[in-house]
Formats: sequence, C-alpha cells, structure tokens
Amino acid sequence: MSGADNSALLTDLYELTMAQAYFRDQRMGMATFSLFIRSYPPNRGYFVSAGLQDVLDFLRDLAFDAAALDYLAAQKLFSEDFLHYLSALRFTGSVWGIPEGRIFFQDEPIVEITAPIIEAQIVETFVINQIHLQSLIATKAARYVHAAGGRPLVDFALRRAHGTDAGMKVARASYLAGFVATSNVLAGSRYGIPIAGTMAHSFVASFEKEIDAFRAYVASFPNSSILLIDTYDTIAGAHNAVQIAKEMAIRGQKLIGVRIDSGDLAAQARAVRKVFDDANLTELKIIGSGGLDEFDLAQQLEANVPFDSYGIGTKMGMSADAPWSDMSYKLVEYERRPILKLSPGKASWPGKKQVFRFRDGEGKFARDAIGLRDEKLTGEFLLKEYMRDGQLSGRCPSLSECRSTFVADFAALPASVKAIRNPVRYPVEFSAELNNLREQTVKNI
Amino acid sequence: MSGADNSALLTDLYELTMAQAYFRDQRMGMATFSLFIRSYPPNRGYFVSAGLQDVLDFLRDLAFDAAALDYLAAQKLFSEDFLHYLSALRFTGSVWGIPEGRIFFQDEPIVEITAPIIEAQIVETFVINQIHLQSLIATKAARYVHAAGGRPLVDFALRRAHGTDAGMKVARASYLAGFVATSNVLAGSRYGIPIAGTMAHSFVASFEKEIDAFRAYVASFPNSSILLIDTYDTIAGAHNAVQIAKEMAIRGQKLIGVRIDSGDLAAQARAVRKVFDDANLTELKIIGSGGLDEFDLAQQLEANVPFDSYGIGTKMGMSADAPWSDMSYKLVEYERRPILKLSPGKASWPGKKQVFRFRDGEGKFARDAIGLRDEKLTGEFLLKEYMRDGQLSGRCPSLSECRSTFVADFAALPASVKAIRNPVRYPVEFSAELNNLREQTVKNI
Repeated sequence: MSGADNSALLTDLYELTMAQAYFRDQRMGMATFSLFIRSYPPNRGYFVSAGLQDVLDFLRDLAFDAAALDYLAAQKLFSEDFLHYLSALRFTGSVWGIPEGRIFFQDEPIVEITAPIIEAQIVETFVINQIHLQSLIATKAARYVHAAGGRPLVDFALRRAHGTDAGMKVARASYLAGFVATSNVLAGSRYGIPIAGTMAHSFVASFEKEIDAFRAYVASFPNSSILLIDTYDTIAGAHNAVQIAKEMAIRGQKLIGVRIDSGDLAAQARAVRKVFDDANLTELKIIGSGGLDEFDLAQQLEANVPFDSYGIGTKMGMSADAPWSDMSYKLVEYERRPILKLSPGKASWPGKKQVFRFRDGEGKFARDAIGLRDEKLTGEFLLKEYMRDGQLSGRCPSLSECRSTFVADFAALPASVKAIRNPVRYPVEFSAELNNLREQTVKNI
Repeated sequence: MSGADNSALLTDLYELTMAQAYFRDQRMGMATFSLFIRSYPPNRGYFVSAGLQDVLDFLRDLAFDAAALDYLAAQKLFSEDFLHYLSALRFTGSVWGIPEGRIFFQDEPIVEITAPIIEAQIVETFVINQIHLQSLIATKAARYVHAAGGRPLVDFALRRAHGTDAGMKVARASYLAGFVATSNVLAGSRYGIPIAGTMAHSFVASFEKEIDAFRAYVASFPNSSILLIDTYDTIAGAHNAVQIAKEMAIRGQKLIGVRIDSGDLAAQARAVRKVFDDANLTELKIIGSGGLDEFDLAQQLEANVPFDSYGIGTKMGMSADAPWSDMSYKLVEYERRPILKLSPGKASWPGKKQVFRFRDGEGKFARDAIGLRDEKLTGEFLLKEYMRDGQLSGRCPSLSECRSTFVADFAALPASVKAIRNPVRYPVEFSAELNNLREQTVKNI
C-alpha cells in the first residue's frame, strides 16, 4: 500500500467533524453501516464484487500518525481530548462482505461494518472509494469478457485510467473478471497478473522503414513478438509482417502475430487475415485494439471478424458508458435500534442483513432474497465474516481464487441477465422479516 | 509521492520491450514526443492544463530499484545488459509544457519531451495517465465554476472518484479551476487546499430526534456548523434549524446554514429560504448537493434558486459526461528527422512545436497558432521550458499561482467559447512553416 492509499486522512472532513461531535456527546455505541448500490446503471443487470481486500487492509492498518494529528490540530476545529482519542484509535469492529468475484445485485449489501460509531463512520469514504471503483470496473470487464465469446482480452487501460491507483485497480479488477493479462507492469509485479504488450507507433516511426523496425524488434523477442502494422498502411504492414515471419521461420523462430489499432478494424482484420492465409501463415494471430467497447466486440463476434484477441483500454478502464454507480454506505443500526433514511429517492432498509441465493434444478441462479443477518432462510449465504474485533477472522482468498469464483458465478447467471443490452431484471426480494422490521421502523419515526 | 505513484514499473510493458529493442539496436538518438488532445469531447470548446507538476516530479525521481529489476529479470524477456542499463537509467531530457491553469485547445501540444528515445518512450504511460486525468477534471471543474456564476463550490468527489489517486488529483484540479475548498482532508494537508464539510444523514439518524443530532453537532462547532436537514423531512428540518439558530444566538454563537441533498432541490431551497426569511434569519445559508452537474447549476442560476453554494461530487470527479479525452503522446522527431503518423483518424504533426496566442484589443483571446518551436511568430508563447538535461530549469508555480493563472486566462476567454452547451470553436491554425514541414514529411514517406 502506498502513502496515499492508507492514510487515515484520506477521508471527508465531515467524517471527522461528526466523530468530534459523537465524542463530545459520548456517543460511542455500536453502529452497523451497509454498503449497497441503489440502482443499475444503463444496460447493467448484475454487478461483480471487487475491492474488499483493499478495504480489509485499510481497516487493519487504520491509524492517525503524528503528521496527520498535527495537521488536524492546526485546523482549530477539534478539541485536544478528541485528538488524543484519535491518536489511539484503531479499527476494532467486524466486517461482513460478499467475496470478491461473486455476482451481486441492486440493493444487496456488499459490505456491512459493525463497530463503535466513530470507527464505522470515518472509514466510509475509503470503503466507498475502493469498492465503488473496483466493482464498477469488474462489472464492466465482465461485460467485455462475455461479449468477446472466449477471445482473450488484455487490459491496456493504464494510460487513460483515472490516476495511478485506478490504473492498478483496473488491472486487478479486469483480471478478476476474466481478462487474461495486463500491460501494467507494476500490476503484474504487485498482483501476479500475467503481463503482455506489443509495440507502439512511435517505435515503427522512429525507423525510416517499417520493416527495419519490425526486424529490430524481433531480434530482441524471437518468440513473443506482435507487430503493429497500421502506422502507415495496414495491408503493406501485413505484407511486411509476412516477410518477417518467413525470415524468422528460417532461423527457427516464430512470429506470434500483428496488432491493428485504427481505421475500419473489421475490414482490415479480414484483409490482413487473407494476406496471411494466402502466404500459408494461418497460425499468425491478429490482435485488435483502439477504443473498443463491449458492443463492438459483440458485433465483431457475430460478424465473424477474424480477430484472435483484443487489447482493451480506455472505455473499459473508466467504465465509460457508466462511470459511476449510486453506491451508498448507510447507517442501518445503532445500539440495536434499526435505522433507515426516508430522503426522497434515497430511502434505505434497516438492520444487519444477509443475502440468500436460491438456485434452480440445474444450479443456475433463480432468485435472491435480502433478509436479516440472523434469519433462517434456506438459500446460500452470500455475505461472509471477514473481520471480527478488528482482526481478520478468516483467510482472504487469493486473486486467482477470486477469479475462479467469478467464473463459477458467471456460468450460473442466466443468459438473459448477462445480456449486454437491456438485460432482464434478476429477481431480488426482501424477506418478510425485513419488510416487517422496515414497517416497524417507519412507524417509530 | 506514494509508492504506486512514482514506481518506474507503472508503465505499459511495451514501453520496456521497445526499450529493449532500441537498446539492442543501439538506437539511442534524441527523440521528441508531443502530448496533445485530438478532439473535443461533447460540449467542450477548451481545456484547462493540469498535471504537469506530477510529471516533473516523476521524471526527476525516475529510477528502477532492485525490486523492479528483479521482477523484470524474472519475466525472461530482457537481456542482462539491458537490465544493467536500466539500473542506471535516469531522466536526462528536456520538458516544455503549457503552465498549469492555462487554457489550451485541441491539437495544441501540452507537453513536449525531448530525450534519448528510451527515456522519452518509457515515461509515456505515466505522462498521459496524470495529465489526461488532471486536465480532464480541471476542465470539468471550470465548467461548473462558470455555470455557478460566482456561487462558491466545494469538492465532495473523493468517495466516488476512481481510486485514491484520482480523489487527490480531483481535489487539486478542481481547486486549480476555481473551487474554493475540498472535503478531502489528505488533499487539504498535502496541497494546502482549504477543507470544508457538513454532516451526513447517518449522524442525524443515529439520534432518535433530528434536533438532538443538531444540538450535539453545534456543541462541537459553535461557529462553523452546517446542518443537513433532509434526512426525514426537509421543511421540518428547516424549522429545527431555525430553533437551533435561535438557541445559538442566545449563547452568542452563529449557525452558518443548512444543506439539502435530495428531492426537488429547487423547490426545497425556495421553501427553506422562506422558512428562514420568515424567522428573520436572512443570513442563514443554504447549500445544495446531490449529483449535480454544471447544467443543473446553470439552470438554477437562471431560475434564481436561492442556493448560496454547492457541494459537488460524483459527476465532477469523473467528468461523468466525458470521462476521457483522446489524449496522445506521439513521436514527432527522431535525430532531427521530423516524424508523423498517417493512421486513419490518428494522423499527427511533425517537429518540436510552440503555441502562439494572439489577443484582441481588449486582451481577449482571438486565435492561436501552432507553429515550430523556433518559429518567430509575434504571439504570446504558451509552452515554457521546465526541465533541461534532466534538471528543473525554473521554479514551478505554486498551486495558488496556477489558480491565479486560470482566473486570468478564463477571464480572457470569449464567452461564446466558454458556453457549457455547443461552444463556438476557438480558432486554432497551423503555421505556414509547420504546414510546409508536414507536406515535406509526408512526401518523404
């Protein structure tokens, strides 16, 4: 974790002013907050859970260091005894969450944190910041993987992802949701994700002739080269690639393929495939890139455009068609009193919760029920306990385990819910007990 | 700078494989790369420069440490002599750039880096990552500031910004473009930005009665409290705020105002204003928030909705209507040979450049010309030298100086170009010399 990532100051000021007011009021009771998404962004019918590991790391390490306390003291907002309290504050609560890689739906709690109210409150900003981004991107990446119909996808998003942390988290979340590699070297190093890449137009352009650039590149990478062939003229580039492949074959080496990054990708892929096939280089692969979204991929799959794989950047890396979701972190219980909010369009459900999933006879997801944490429903429980009394209470799954979790869940998700346009709404109901609690709570207000 | 921010591995793999190929080919000549935006996103007619400081810090500190080199060695892609070369690599080049806070336009180079080609190439990913995000957000924030017509705006974007780095950079970029404060405490601490905040619904809901929550809060903040009044019923909340204001007045304290975060904001602001005015509390301020974009602000300004200021979050923090721009970093010169790219839709202009700005008799921007760096045009030069031979060659302006730069530039930008819908296209031409160079370069290909 970097300095910015884990600073206790990476929070909204109001978290700390509310904490000061709670402290002064000696309001230190146990509170439960619930994190959930109120509504689906356009064309979304499911979400993929991601980001919990970063939240657990943050909670485990939460502490205000001397520099942070000095800065807060200089603001002349906080009392000395409160700052003293902050200096000793650690996270002592419990965390329940939906494991990373699992599919979840609107209204379902992704994470529930129970702790003394100050602790549970001040972590709000970081919890939303990480799970919002990572679940958003994992969901977007899942849409690409689904649309690509088995063709491998590589994350190229780092350059236009929103900052360095997003670049890292996009690599991780897209890998979690089925991408096979990333171009992000630091993400490869930190998360153990396979790294991949080709070459840039600048490399080709720095040589006077394209074929000289190709020769210089394959000299260094005799078994892993992918040549970018659209710097000047894609078809001429394809013929140069054929020449290179033949020279390499004589040396017992193997060109992997080419990348096309501009123009009418479908037409060019077909023309290039023909150049290669005519040269008996049927094994040469063609990689597509250049601002593709999941709708482009679906269209190309349907039209049998002969791309073997894709490099996917900008539009995945910021979930360009839906760059945010209405994810909120709401107080649902304080000192055993169920709590809800009635603000127009922002109403919430009280109490500690569990999500129960029911499958059909073939193991496919049939429906979910959102109920109370201690309710006895028969479905599979989605939320697991990850932290108790401030300590990790179980082993966190590795990234590759989360990846397998996603594969299994996605296979069990009905095709109509997976559709990348106008998906069918998956049935999620609120249990009778939860409905009763809500009615009681509204009455009490 | 944090660990993730300044790692030399925070780059695309192809930057390093191209570097290996350059190295093997002993291709170590001087290259110039130019960073620019090809086209305006929807409703954009100008951009605000931001992010250069982070790029300069990154270049100054660029180095591959032992852990990075070990990771690269383990990939079995790179030769030992190349890794040895990388271990000693530092940035030794020059950087020209448009100062942060200045207005710039489509096609204009924002940054130009001249260095031995490996150095100039491998920094591409980070340079785009930072300047793309920060200029995108500074531009979006400028649109909000313009639409708000002088009403102060506070950045609330941290929770839904894309990750921790984006949260920090959004605070900085929005302050640069005229926001008055941020809720992001770490950004306040790191950048010296004023911090501000109110309270959350959870604070109110944790008390059995709203007015008890208000009393507990103002006890801690007798001179800086803003009460959130829409947790249950906004008008009832306004009456509670009146009660609190009167209690405070008796104690010689002063309530600042209230915040409304949901429902029909315009109707509620008017109703709440009437409650306050009827109680002779005309000085109580009303702050609006809740998913507002610049179009909402413009509409409320036109309709005289009585909000005194706004908290601005999600849609600013990711530039939600245009979350990316087509920013590219292109090789424009290698060993004094001008270079361009002819890829369809991605053609570029050769040579080291300068942007020349011409004003009308009243000091307003009239037109820009993009020319060659050493061209003798009479306009104001936008690009300044920031680094030479790997050393900072001048003092970098402070954030508050960049903020003043923005104010001056924005005042000189014609109103028609500032329009938040369908802005008029500002005239940017290419100089005769640059046109000639381009024609010559195309001929040579």
